Parts: sequence; structure tokens; C-alpha cells
Amino acid sequence: MIAAGFTGGWLDRADHLRGDAAALSRALADPRARLMTLDGGDPVIDAGGRIAWTTLADLADDAAAIFLGIDAQGTPHFTQSRPGDVAGAARSRALTAMLDVMPAADAAILGAARSLTGWHARNRFCANCGTPDSLIRGGWARRCPACGTEHYPRVDPVVIMLAEHDGRVLLGRQATWPAGRYSALAGFVEPGESLEEAVAREVFEEAGVRVYDVRYVTSQPWPFPGQLMLAALATADDDALTLDATEIEDAIWVTRAEVLSALAAEPDARFLPPPAYAIARTLLETWAAGTSDGQE
Amino acid sequence: MIAAGFTGGWLDRADHLRGDAAALSRALADPRARLMTLDGGDPVIDAGGRIAWTTLADLADDAAAIFLGIDAQGTPHFTQSRPGDVAGAARSRALTAMLDVMPAADAAILGAARSLTGWHARNRFCANCGTPDSLIRGGWARRCPACGTEHYPRVDPVVIMLAEHDGRVLLGRQATWPAGRYSALAGFVEPGESLEEAVAREVFEEAGVRVYDVRYVTSQPWPFPGQLMLAALATADDDALTLDATEIEDAIWVTRAEVLSALAAEPDARFLPPPAYAIARTLLETWAAGTSDGQE
Repeated sequence: MIAAGFTGGWLDRADHLRGDAAALSRALADPRARLMTLDGGDPVIDAGGRIAWTTLADLADDAAAIFLGIDAQGTPHFTQSRPGDVAGAARSRALTAMLDVMPAADAAILGAARSLTGWHARNRFCANCGTPDSLIRGGWARRCPACGTEHYPRVDPVVIMLAEHDGRVLLGRQATWPAGRYSALAGFVEPGESLEEAVAREVFEEAGVRVYDVRYVTSQPWPFPGQLMLAALATADDDALTLDATEIEDAIWVTRAEVLSALAAEPDARFLPPPAYAIARTLLETWAAGTSDGQE
Repeated sequence: MIAAGFTGGWLDRADHLRGDAAALSRALADPRARLMTLDGGDPVIDAGGRIAWTTLADLADDAAAIFLGIDAQGTPHFTQSRPGDVAGAARSRALTAMLDVMPAADAAILGAARSLTGWHARNRFCANCGTPDSLIRGGWARRCPACGTEHYPRVDPVVIMLAEHDGRVLLGRQATWPAGRYSALAGFVEPGESLEEAVAREVFEEAGVRVYDVRYVTSQPWPFPGQLMLAALATADDDALTLDATEIEDAIWVTRAEVLSALAAEPDARFLPPPAYAIARTLLETWAAGTSDGQE
């Protein structure tokens, strides 16, 4: 089992309670109930980097409570959706620093909270008829009062992959990234294609490299704003690159030794790797350790 | 490589042309251009079960053209989005019959067309501000004229899985299915969870069975209305069942011999398996053949 960032949350989502108005009312009235507040999508954390939960006394007057689940003691946990919420794709500098120290199991719960609150903030109107709609099911859906359409939180599948050729893997960088940072190529899965087809299409679109033999490795949720990252390896027969400059600024083939040097943060490393909570790093670690599959 | 239904389409999606208005105009003016018409989400097929393409002369007056891609000869292919379109989760009886004979590579293109047209039909208003919005990028996005938000077609990741215990796998059936039909359990991946976590949550929610060691097998797009099906095996230590009657009507553990008998459509088979174009069948075939992974 490979442990990726934003996984391992310690709440039972308790889906059966979401549609049960009486049970949700009881949970909201539970004196033990805990609340995660978010400010521009950023949580409050304690000295250990963990979520600093507060009580429902801090639920804002203009907020709708979002039910995140119950812990092993049966304590209900919530976050809140407010009219002025902003929780989109961008991470604040403060949040980036928090994620470097936050345990993955706490980051998983933050991720769910942030994806949900951001989705509500960006989806206040019914896409089917244009009427303002309302949060239902403890925050796990919205319903239109005019046409009755129910809308569910969106999760966008994204493939993220290392093309492999002759003992090296392909990394790219975007112009907006920190200097020296290289990571796995990635892209959204489109309607009408499989994960495996999306991997091949994206590597070709971005780098001009044809790949086959796509091997799934593992996955993680990515709450900026709400992706499911599906990590894979694939094989390339040719290392010639033709870059799509609108997508990536540069791409390089790196050896296992170069990856290990970068992961160890050696001073002369060829590149700066992705942060620990990003599945691109998990993918690089897996490949570099040679445990990705039976072929290594 | 495992070939799943709705994969292997023979069009290059040519993403770089979608944002190029001049190129799209040239494609629409190309006398070779082909059009797939849909009636209630159903295509026209020829005697061989293939898509019966027509020409852009058949593009309806009230239609927006949707660019599906170019074939190996550079011929552009389109479908159309019309005001009265309905293409939702339900399959007509006619379409179900068509899919039984349609080659997977044609079904893949139909799937993309149906997912896109259905998405446009259900998303004519900006979810951010409620204003009617417009199709852009050859049908691969919508843009709001009021707030400027761009919306991209939705793809919902779904896990579909076989829990495995002592040489048997777990199948379930929904009350609305044809008599005798059993298939793999399945459910939507939620915000803030990984594929692996979604598999474990769904098997427990629907059948009360705890699973671990989730092993991804393969994927397919499912255009009813627009899912990415992610198929996996997982291991259970206990075969006791506690069914969620709102989700499934029944669940059974089946042996490899029973699966092989069902796949062979033997008269005394214990259950009716899913159709060939469903990845649940691919998953059953893979498991029954014992080629799913190194453990078999």
C-alpha cells in the first residue's frame, strides 16, 4: 500500500446520515460537535500542524453547516459554507506552508472540506435553469427549487504520469512554478476516454512523446479545487521531445540517480522535486525505489 | 492490455484546434466533414452496427456543431448540440440493442458525443451567476457572458469493484435491472477521497464488507451520462453481508466456475452477467481468467 498525500482521513463519512434530517439535527445539537473554520480556504492549525477544531458556537450566522463525518467516538465534525467563500484552485502561501507540516490524515479532512466549500461557492445557481439553488444533504448536494434538479459535488479525474524510456523518466515544468521545480506531466481526463487513453493523449499533446503499456500506480484527492489524481507509469520508445509551449515551459528526461538526488534535496540536484503531499512525488519515489511493478 | 468497452476510438481529438476559431471554420467548411446525428441521445447505425455518419448539410438550423476530432485522413468529424436535446443517464431500448452489436471503437466516439451533448443540454446556465451561457471551443467548454466563468464538461469518476474472499467474488443487483442480472458493486468517488478509499467505503456501505489491498485493473468511459469507470479488485477477510436495501436488492458471493458458466451463457448459470460493453464484464472476465494480477 502506497500512502499518498490527502489520504487516510480519520472521519467516517456516514453517508446514511446525510439524507436524514433528524440525525443531522441531532448531530448539530451534540455538545461534542466540532467545527473546522476556513478563511479564504485556509484552516487554523495547532503547533503540531493539525487542524485546530473549534465548536459550533463559532458557526457563522450566515453559514450553512457541512457535515464531514463522525470520528471513532461518534463525535460529529462539520465545516461551514458562507456567502463570501473563496476556495478555488489557488493555494495561499500560508496554506502551502501549512501543508508542509500537516499530517496526511488531517490534510485529507481539510481537502474534503475545502473541495466542498469551494464547490458550493462556485455553484450557487442551477446550471439547468439558472435559479439560485440550495445546499441539501448536509452539504453533499444542492437542489434547485424551480426545476428540482439535484447537483452533486464535482470531482475531476486527472491523470499524472511518468513516461519511461531507457531507464529515464520524463518531467516537465510550468512557467509559474518555483524556480527549478520539475514534476510529472498531468492533464484532465475528458468525456469519452479511459484513464489509459488520457495518459497517452496528454503525454503526446504536451511533449510529443508516444507512450503505451500504461501502468496505474496509485491515487490521491487534490483539493485545488477538487481533482482525483490518478498516477501512472507508461513506456515510450522514443525520447525526442516536441513541447507544447502553452502547457509546459520545459521538459527533461531524468535518471534514477538524478531523481534520488533530488528527493534527498542534495545541493547539486538537477531539479527541485514536488512537495511531499503531491502524488507526483509519491510517483517519483515509487519509480526511484523500483517498486512500481514487476518489471522494475 | 485489457480492452474495455467505449475505448479505442479512431479520432484524434486534436485539442489544439478547439481554441482556434479559424481552424474550426475551415473544418466546418471542409466538404469531407462528417456529422453524427443523435435523436434523444441515440445515433443512426448501419447494418454492421457502425455509426452512420452523414454530412454537415444535415446540421440542424438551431444546432451548434461539436468538434469530435479528425481521422487518419484529416477528415473532421462533428456532432451537434440542439436546444431540445435529452441525453441523460437512461439508455433507450434501441440504444441498448445497438450497443450489443456496435464495435467498441465506434462506441467510444458515440460515447464522447453523447456525454458532450448531454452535458450541454443539462448546463445551459452559468452555475456561478445564473446567466444563460454559450458553447465555446468547438463544444469542449461553455463561457458565461456575464461573469466570464468558463465551464468544462464534467466527468464523474466511479469505482467499480469485486471484493474477493476465499476464491469467490461479491456481486450485487439493483431492483431495476433485468431479471437474474448481477454485476460488480460501484459508486461515485467523492471529494476528498482516493480511488482506493472510495472502493473500501462503497463496498462497506452497500454490502457491509470490509476490504483492503485494492488492486486497480482497468478503466472505461461510461456515457450514461458521463462517468469514468475505474475497475478494481480488493480483498475481504469476512464474507458476512449487511445489505443497504436503498442501494442494492441482493448480493451474492460467486465462484470462478459460476462466473465462467455465466460468461458462457450456460442455461443453468447462476446469474446473468453484465453486457460486453460494460467494464463489470471485463472485470469478471479478467478475474475468472486469473490474469488480474500476480497473486492469481
